[in-house]
Amino acid sequence: MPQTLQLTNPMDMHLHLREGEMLSAILPFSANPFSAAVVMPNLKTPITTTAQALAYKRQILSLCSTSFEPLMSIFLTPDLDKQELIRAKEAGIHILKLYPKGSTTGSEKGVKEMLCEKTLHIFEIAQELGFILSIHGESNGFCMEREYEFLPIFAHIAQHFPRLRIIIEHMSDRRSLELIEQYPNLYATLTLHHITMNLDDVLGGGINPHHFCKPMLKTKKDQQALLQAALNAHPKVSFGSDSAPHLESAKLNSKGAAGIFSAPILLPALAEVFAFHNALDCLQTFISNRAIANYKLKHFPIKTITLERVENPVPPYINTPLGHIIPLRAQTNLSWRIKEENR
Amino acid sequence: MPQTLQLTNPMDMHLHLREGEMLSAILPFSANPFSAAVVMPNLKTPITTTAQALAYKRQILSLCSTSFEPLMSIFLTPDLDKQELIRAKEAGIHILKLYPKGSTTGSEKGVKEMLCEKTLHIFEIAQELGFILSIHGESNGFCMEREYEFLPIFAHIAQHFPRLRIIIEHMSDRRSLELIEQYPNLYATLTLHHITMNLDDVLGGGINPHHFCKPMLKTKKDQQALLQAALNAHPKVSFGSDSAPHLESAKLNSKGAAGIFSAPILLPALAEVFAFHNALDCLQTFISNRAIANYKLKHFPIKTITLERVENPVPPYINTPLGHIIPLRAQTNLSWRIKEENR
Repeated sequence: MPQTLQLTNPMDMHLHLREGEMLSAILPFSANPFSAAVVMPNLKTPITTTAQALAYKRQILSLCSTSFEPLMSIFLTPDLDKQELIRAKEAGIHILKLYPKGSTTGSEKGVKEMLCEKTLHIFEIAQELGFILSIHGESNGFCMEREYEFLPIFAHIAQHFPRLRIIIEHMSDRRSLELIEQYPNLYATLTLHHITMNLDDVLGGGINPHHFCKPMLKTKKDQQALLQAALNAHPKVSFGSDSAPHLESAKLNSKGAAGIFSAPILLPALAEVFAFHNALDCLQTFISNRAIANYKLKHFPIKTITLERVENPVPPYINTPLGHIIPLRAQTNLSWRIKEENR
Repeated sequence: MPQTLQLTNPMDMHLHLREGEMLSAILPFSANPFSAAVVMPNLKTPITTTAQALAYKRQILSLCSTSFEPLMSIFLTPDLDKQELIRAKEAGIHILKLYPKGSTTGSEKGVKEMLCEKTLHIFEIAQELGFILSIHGESNGFCMEREYEFLPIFAHIAQHFPRLRIIIEHMSDRRSLELIEQYPNLYATLTLHHITMNLDDVLGGGINPHHFCKPMLKTKKDQQALLQAALNAHPKVSFGSDSAPHLESAKLNSKGAAGIFSAPILLPALAEVFAFHNALDCLQTFISNRAIANYKLKHFPIKTITLERVENPVPPYINTPLGHIIPLRAQTNLSWRIKEENR
């Protein structure tokens, strides 16, 4: 097995950076190892306009000590109009993020009727202007079936807007994989946690709120199918961590928050998984090439990250001015780490 | 709808009472409204002998301010021998409780090989002496399938020991219901939480550790099937709450304990469910008659509990000398309550 590994231009196509002190505290975990990342727009005041997105981008860049491209996205509300979409496009923003209302953290202003006239009209303009439509695809049904129940909506949009690129965000169900193979314009992002864990990691022993996320971790079969898609660098699947910083205090109560903070460990943990399955030669394609092709990325800083095979203990928590955050794999040892000059 | 309801001799066929200060604090919630309860033997030092069981029974009775019959059970270890079983029987104990090793709280001394010669020999003696064999039936497989994967073991024991009464404890999977209908000597107990909740109540919104239990709450379909069995007072199903007091502090951490403390609300909550489904006329059979028949109960104090239809707020926590316990339905309103003279 190789003892070092070079990755060029790692891309995180689904990232929560938050604002203010939290943003400052967590940004380096992503900005240092990644060339670019798609920044989610579900802030407390959602990013629904180009002006907001550009201000948010300036805020992020002002805090970056390394070269890093935040790929901004616009929160799709039923009121989004053509003028705003044209402005976004002219400002270099080409990702729309759709949340079904109430589906997850910060989705209160999301879309209630996925296929009503107003929403379909937005899809029409998005297609015409060449946007990518990223969707948090979950119904409000039984928790294990929410992504599956949403698949007919993906199919409908993919069929009726054949020139619109649509992304199944943080794919969690093996049946979603089958769907992206049926529609040429349907793609997906995949997290680290959905390929390395399943529901047993939340409820199999004690209950572990630090592994609770949406979409929920599903069955072992789902995990296996998604893992294979990653290990084979499935052509229509890009890496997107969905890393989200929730304070320990927001996790440990009787209505614990959904989300996993994986940013501090992503590349070492992926190297570990791919090495374990003898698939290290596919990691470059999974972590970067697929995103560049699927999102037609053109402008991003060139970055080479070297990983070395060495024991790498994950700290019990990440300290921020707002409190502790427990990262994924806290207090365990990773078998790879990023070389010091890249950290 | 009737405004009052009388229940005679309510029976809780699966109850965790713990020891010492915890026992003192929680006992009244069960001893006041119930005539009798099967007391689980999985204490820190499991109740594996008749002497221990009788000492535990004396401890319970010394703390009872009302008439209440603790039906003692013996923890089945691979070392349980015929002499001990004869002693138990002579002391009026006729329930054996089998835990697969490591399956739940306090099961470390449980049985590893369910169908090995040693265990089968114990079943043989248990059958001969007329014991009831209560089993926590879960495999160590994927969390949603653990009860289902254990069903072949139930079938095997039921088939090979046709005169041994076997109980599927805290039945959680609709496929277990099908099994008890196939074997005349196979029965089940059913909790309040498995008929009123499903996995959505643990993970559907935020993550709720107070609804985390083993066996896990399953799908809506499972809940519906189990609820129907309760509402129809299925002849082979007895009520058993599996109420277990875990401190709030043991619930709210990264390896939260499994178990739901339902004792403070059982009869009012059952009245509410049965009233909602127009099945109040079956509650007496479900809460008492089935247990008396299925466990061949002969000696228990006669008790009549009157419930009245009136708003009944559940407190946010139950205070004990060891800390807070959050009861099921904390801070919600029940629509029935036990009349003061019975509390």
